[in-house]
Amino acid sequence: MTNIDLNKIEFFKGIDNEKIIADLTKIDYKILKFKKDDIVAFRGDEIKGMYINLKGTLVTEMLKDSGETKKIEELSNGKIMASAFIFGSFNNFPVDIIAKSDVEILYIEKKELLKLLTQDKILLERFLNEISGKAQFLSKNLWESISNKRIDKKLAEYFLNNEKNQIVELNISIKELSEYFNVSRPSLSRVLKELVDNKKIEKIKKGMYKILERNYLENL
Amino acid sequence: MTNIDLNKIEFFKGIDNEKIIADLTKIDYKILKFKKDDIVAFRGDEIKGMYINLKGTLVTEMLKDSGETKKIEELSNGKIMASAFIFGSFNNFPVDIIAKSDVEILYIEKKELLKLLTQDKILLERFLNEISGKAQFLSKNLWESISNKRIDKKLAEYFLNNEKNQIVELNISIKELSEYFNVSRPSLSRVLKELVDNKKIEKIKKGMYKILERNYLENL
Repeated sequence: MTNIDLNKIEFFKGIDNEKIIADLTKIDYKILKFKKDDIVAFRGDEIKGMYINLKGTLVTEMLKDSGETKKIEELSNGKIMASAFIFGSFNNFPVDIIAKSDVEILYIEKKELLKLLTQDKILLERFLNEISGKAQFLSKNLWESISNKRIDKKLAEYFLNNEKNQIVELNISIKELSEYFNVSRPSLSRVLKELVDNKKIEKIKKGMYKILERNYLENL
Repeated sequence: MTNIDLNKIEFFKGIDNEKIIADLTKIDYKILKFKKDDIVAFRGDEIKGMYINLKGTLVTEMLKDSGETKKIEELSNGKIMASAFIFGSFNNFPVDIIAKSDVEILYIEKKELLKLLTQDKILLERFLNEISGKAQFLSKNLWESISNKRIDKKLAEYFLNNEKNQIVELNISIKELSEYFNVSRPSLSRVLKELVDNKKIEKIKKGMYKILERNYLENL
């Protein structure tokens, strides 16, 4: 066993250390060790069980088309690697996972994990919360990615209805405009910024914009 | 109890009917009944447990800005309602759920569900597969929604590099082009169709396109 206090690890937090040890001795598990800069898993590698980071820092990365890598998130001590990909039909790491320091990982194979989860209702609920949380996070992001397009459309219509010689003066604040559109203020700001960044409109001064690509706005 | 054979229901399939009954008698559950066209849940309603459709057809719908409703999916007999929203921190229906026929639903409150899942490893694995599958489906969709934009960009560059008087003749098939871009053929076809639908390019004939909005393609 590792010499790490398991009840200091997020997944086991609040559970008596002896109870954790007792639970774990009833199942098969491994402690995996990695050195700084080791690749713990490649995108596409099969996931055969649960990997909990016990010590050190992992980062998840994606290889971009350009060959550069893009850091996605940090998995600090206590986090489960790719938790929503252990069960279900797609059991492969969706990203590369790299050790950013010396790392210790508790590995529990799927069948043993099922045993552990039926043994301990707190751990079961924690694991269900974890993967449900992932699904909810993804659902929210997908929803925003889709509905942003609609904000786009609302804003475009507003600009086209209020322009005079390609110039639009906003007589209301972004906050009021977001209430008028029934969308969140940060979402509206983001979409407005995207239109400026993509040179569809130009910000002349606070509250005043110029339409650069009328066609684009009309066809949203 | 309902007079429905539970082992014919997807979630309980393959498990001995007496074992299911024995498992269920140890926990609290309810059978909820709805008539055709009843609203079973509104978007935003709190989810306090698991709802399995035992009989009839449910549909999930979203209210669009226009006031129309858009059908999202059908939950046939055996399906769990909003399965990824029972645990985690966001416990609200993400969509409206409507009965499209007379419906019977097995409702098991969260705490009782945890009991059931620790009692039966098959049901536990099934439930974990179900919510992990949801997360994986959402992840795939989000990924496509993000990476589609990049396909967009690749295609736009290809069009701009190969145009002659705004006309682009594709001398290779979509399949070959998708291999060249290192993307899937259906994704590429979808993005191509979007550009045509949004009047950024026009399809003149098979393999021949006209650029309508050069600015748009340049700024992707």
